[in-house]
Amino acid sequence: MTSFNEFDLADMPQRYRANFINSLSGFKSANLIGTQTANGVFNLAVFNSVFHLGANPPLLGMVFRPHTVRRDTLENILETQHYTINHIHKNMIKQAHQTSAKYDKDISEFTAVGLTPEIHGAFPAPYVQESKIKIGLQMREVLPVKSNDTQIMVGEIKEIHLAQQLLSPDGHVELDQAEGIAISGLDTYHLPQLLARFDYATPT
Amino acid sequence: MTSFNEFDLADMPQRYRANFINSLSGFKSANLIGTQTANGVFNLAVFNSVFHLGANPPLLGMVFRPHTVRRDTLENILETQHYTINHIHKNMIKQAHQTSAKYDKDISEFTAVGLTPEIHGAFPAPYVQESKIKIGLQMREVLPVKSNDTQIMVGEIKEIHLAQQLLSPDGHVELDQAEGIAISGLDTYHLPQLLARFDYATPT
Repeated sequence: MTSFNEFDLADMPQRYRANFINSLSGFKSANLIGTQTANGVFNLAVFNSVFHLGANPPLLGMVFRPHTVRRDTLENILETQHYTINHIHKNMIKQAHQTSAKYDKDISEFTAVGLTPEIHGAFPAPYVQESKIKIGLQMREVLPVKSNDTQIMVGEIKEIHLAQQLLSPDGHVELDQAEGIAISGLDTYHLPQLLARFDYATPT
Repeated sequence: MTSFNEFDLADMPQRYRANFINSLSGFKSANLIGTQTANGVFNLAVFNSVFHLGANPPLLGMVFRPHTVRRDTLENILETQHYTINHIHKNMIKQAHQTSAKYDKDISEFTAVGLTPEIHGAFPAPYVQESKIKIGLQMREVLPVKSNDTQIMVGEIKEIHLAQQLLSPDGHVELDQAEGIAISGLDTYHLPQLLARFDYATPT
């Protein structure tokens, strides 16, 4: 075992610390966020920060970095109030990662990386056709985090489109059957294999 | 493809909806949170809601459900201001899941499930000896989420203890080499296998 204290962390080179700290929460979700500008340009961006916030009402959270970098996704959501979350699968990881490149604002990442926008009814944000689990959300609130000037977007799930065979009789979605991805650190993609599903635990 | 709208979600039986919505964020981190009461009773609880919030300062977030259920972990943190996050590995999943059983308040889950508390110096919360990646945090702020009365705990990383061989030369921690776990839904445990690590993306 090796140990680091807060002074060791403060002394680390920036990129080293980013890799290190980004690994410490454990495995992360791997999603593509679809939005559109007021002019109808589709935007797509890989996020590893989507997290479950509650089932009733159905809410998901997502972290945005401070306003020192361009944040097209956040600006589009604040403008249109809507966004999509699309799961990343094994056969999409290259394209998904490539959406993190800094393209000009009038270029759609869909076109740039070779993924297909899909529109459902009147929902004002594009889904990713190649994804097997797609979620349409409406913005509910934005939580400012004082400790580091990040913001947490809270969205309510308004619609879900998924491949029927992934849905278990009890509502569980078999992410491993979809070849869903887990991210570690900033840039490392993993394929999770099912180990076990447990019953509700009671004292023994 | 099959679709669900917000009315379909509202009509679902509670347990079905819990399984369904809990699957939709994607794979989740798998951690054991160690705390202690003012009387020094060690508490240990499995959490799938720890998420990365920022590297500088080093911050992690964690979701707590509304105050309608007993929340020993939250109460201990509010009292002692400190907690530990310990990664769950393949050989610990049964014990980790069993910590979610409702034990009496004066019973330590460490003893009940067969995991070993480990104290480092003066840090006022127990680590899990069996874990290969252990993080000591101090509470920074609690964010109330109006949309569903959950609370997000924001903690600053104060110390880290990890198996040296997991640390790459550039700071990335090889969670797959540690046989780290990803959770889906409420109760399903997966072993992620490394697929690829990508360079920083630039427009092509």
